[in-house]
Amino acid sequence: MMQRRVSKAIRIGDVTVGGNAPIAVQSMTKTDTRDVASTVRQIKELEECGCEIIRSAVPDMEAAIALSGIKKQIKIPLVADIHFDYRLALQAIESGVDGLRLNPGNISEPDKVAAVVSAAKGSEIPIRIGVNAGSLPQDIDPKLTTAQKMVVAAMRHIKLLEDLDFDLIKVSLKAFDVPTTIEAYKDIAGKVPYPLHIGITESGPAKSGIIRSACGISPLLYMGIGDTIRVSLSANPVEEVVTAYEILKSLDLRHHGAVLVSCPTCGRTEVNLIEMVKEVEERLAKVDKPIKVAVMGCVVNGPGEAKDADIGIACGKGKGVLFRKGEKIGVVDEKDFVDVLMREVEGF
Amino acid sequence: MMQRRVSKAIRIGDVTVGGNAPIAVQSMTKTDTRDVASTVRQIKELEECGCEIIRSAVPDMEAAIALSGIKKQIKIPLVADIHFDYRLALQAIESGVDGLRLNPGNISEPDKVAAVVSAAKGSEIPIRIGVNAGSLPQDIDPKLTTAQKMVVAAMRHIKLLEDLDFDLIKVSLKAFDVPTTIEAYKDIAGKVPYPLHIGITESGPAKSGIIRSACGISPLLYMGIGDTIRVSLSANPVEEVVTAYEILKSLDLRHHGAVLVSCPTCGRTEVNLIEMVKEVEERLAKVDKPIKVAVMGCVVNGPGEAKDADIGIACGKGKGVLFRKGEKIGVVDEKDFVDVLMREVEGF
Repeated sequence: MMQRRVSKAIRIGDVTVGGNAPIAVQSMTKTDTRDVASTVRQIKELEECGCEIIRSAVPDMEAAIALSGIKKQIKIPLVADIHFDYRLALQAIESGVDGLRLNPGNISEPDKVAAVVSAAKGSEIPIRIGVNAGSLPQDIDPKLTTAQKMVVAAMRHIKLLEDLDFDLIKVSLKAFDVPTTIEAYKDIAGKVPYPLHIGITESGPAKSGIIRSACGISPLLYMGIGDTIRVSLSANPVEEVVTAYEILKSLDLRHHGAVLVSCPTCGRTEVNLIEMVKEVEERLAKVDKPIKVAVMGCVVNGPGEAKDADIGIACGKGKGVLFRKGEKIGVVDEKDFVDVLMREVEGF
Repeated sequence: MMQRRVSKAIRIGDVTVGGNAPIAVQSMTKTDTRDVASTVRQIKELEECGCEIIRSAVPDMEAAIALSGIKKQIKIPLVADIHFDYRLALQAIESGVDGLRLNPGNISEPDKVAAVVSAAKGSEIPIRIGVNAGSLPQDIDPKLTTAQKMVVAAMRHIKLLEDLDFDLIKVSLKAFDVPTTIEAYKDIAGKVPYPLHIGITESGPAKSGIIRSACGISPLLYMGIGDTIRVSLSANPVEEVVTAYEILKSLDLRHHGAVLVSCPTCGRTEVNLIEMVKEVEERLAKVDKPIKVAVMGCVVNGPGEAKDADIGIACGKGKGVLFRKGEKIGVVDEKDFVDVLMREVEGF
C-alpha cells in the first residue's frame, strides 16, 4: 500500500512540513500584495476554509514592506514569493514572513545569495526552491528530458544553499504536463532528503485545472511523494484549497469535513437522485466533522454499497431506507429524504 | 515513463478495447431504459461529446426488449447492464446489444450461465465482469483486504466463463475508496490477460466526484493499467464524458479538442485574467481540433511558460504579447485579448 517517503521535517511558522506531519494545504493570494486590506481579507477567507500556509507575490519593495502589515492580521504562516531581487527577500524577512520562495541561482552575485541565506538562517526561515518547466536555465544539456532538466536546475539551487550550510529547504518541480511533473518528482525524491511541495503549474480554469491537478498530484501521493500541496487554478483561491482537501480525502490522507458517496443513477433509479445529492452536498459543506454520508439510488444495491458509510440512505420509489453504520434504522418518505438524512448527520 | 500493460484486445461493436487501441471513453444512460425516446436522446447527446460506448441498465424484460429500438437509432456500441436474471441477458442479445455487463456467479444455475455464454459466443458479444466493493460474496475469507476480496470475486466469475471456453472478457473492480481500487486493479492486472474497465464507483456529485475519479483513475493510467474508463458522477452523463477526456488529456493519452494552460494569477497580475480565461474556456469548448492554448497573467513569466503552447498570450498592463508556437507574433490591446487570441486559434 501507500508508504510515505521519509523527508526531513521543517517548520514554516507553526506548521510542520515533511516528516510525519499531515500533508499541508497551501494557496497563494491573487490580490495586489501592496493592498494590505484586500490581501488580508482574502487570506482570512482562505483560513476559514482550511488553508494552512499562504504565499504572496512580492514584485517590489512596497509589497515587501506591506507583508509586515499583512502578517500581523493573519493566523496562518506567510511565505514571500520572490524573483531575482535579493533586497526584496531581505525586506520580507524583516517584515516577519515565515518562509521564502526563491531560486538562489537566479540571484547573480554570490554575496547577495549569502546575505539572504544568512538572514533566513538567523530567523529560522525555510526557503522553497521552486523550479518551473517554463523557465529553465538555457545552459542545461539539451539532450535531457524536461523532467531531467528540472531536476538538474533544482540540484544547482540546492547546492548553492547547502554550500552556505543551509538546510531549511523545501523543493518543488512543477510543469503543466502531468507525466513530466511526476517523473521530475520521482527523480528528486530519491536524490534529496528535503520535503517536497507538489502541484501542477498553470493547470487552467476551474474544471479542467481541477482534473489536471488531481491527475498529477494523486499518483505522486500514491507513491508516498509530497509533503505539502498547492492546486494552481485560474479561479478564486478558495477553490484551490477545497480541491486540495478533496484530493487528500480521496487518498485517505486527511480528514476534512464530510465525504459524500453517491451513485451516478441509472435506468433503475426511481427518484430524482441528482437533485437530492446536490442539496445534500450543499448542506454537508457546512458540516465540520469527518463523516461519510451515502446517498444511493436503489434499494437493491444501495444498502450494500452504503454499508461503509456513517449515515446512508437507499432510495426506492416513494420510500428510502435509512442506515447508520450499516444498520437499518428506519424507512423515510421521499419528501423527507434530505431533512431526515441531515438530522441524522447532525446528531452523529 | 508510462508503459501500457499488454492486454488482449476485444471488440464491442466497432470499438476495440484493449491491445493498443486508444483508451475508450464510456458512460451509462440515466433515463428509464424502457423510455426509448428519452434514452436515445441522451445517447445522442453523449455521442455528440465523444462518448464511445454506452451502457444501459436492464431491470426487466420490457427494458431488455426496448434495447432493440434504442440500438437502431444510435451510432455507438450499446452494452446491457444485467443483474441476476439470465433471461434478460438472452433478450438483450436478441435485441442486438454489443456487450453485456453481467456477473455470471450471480446467476445461480450453471445451465443458465451456459445458455447466456453460448448466446454471447454465437453473437461474438463480450461480457464485462463488474465487481463492486459494496456487493462482495459473503463466503470470501474475511481476513483478506477489500481489494483482495474483489480480486477473488472477479477470478471466480472469470473461471465460470473460461470453463465454458469463453474469453471475450473485460473486467472491472470498483470501489469508492481510491487506494482499495488501485490495489485491486494492480493485483488483477498481473493475473489475467483481459482488458480492464477502470473507474471509481459512486464517486459522488460533480465536483468531489470528479476529483475522486481523477485521483483514482490517474495513478492506474500512469501505471499503464486501464483500457476503457467510465467516470461515475451523480450528474448529467455528459459531465462523465467530459471529465474522462480531461483525465486522458492530462496524461497525454488522448487528444480531444483544446487544452487550456492558464496561470492562477498572483500579486503580479495586472489584468482580470480569471474572467478572461473563463471566456476563452467557453469559446474553446466549441473548437474541435487538438490545440494547446496558453493564457498567462504576466509578461515576465508568461512567454517562458507559454512557449510549449500552439497559441499563447502573455498579458501585462493594458497590453499583451501574442505567441504562435513560441514565436512572438504581435502586441494586442487589452480590449482585444480574447478576440485576437480566438482568431489565431481558429486560423491555426
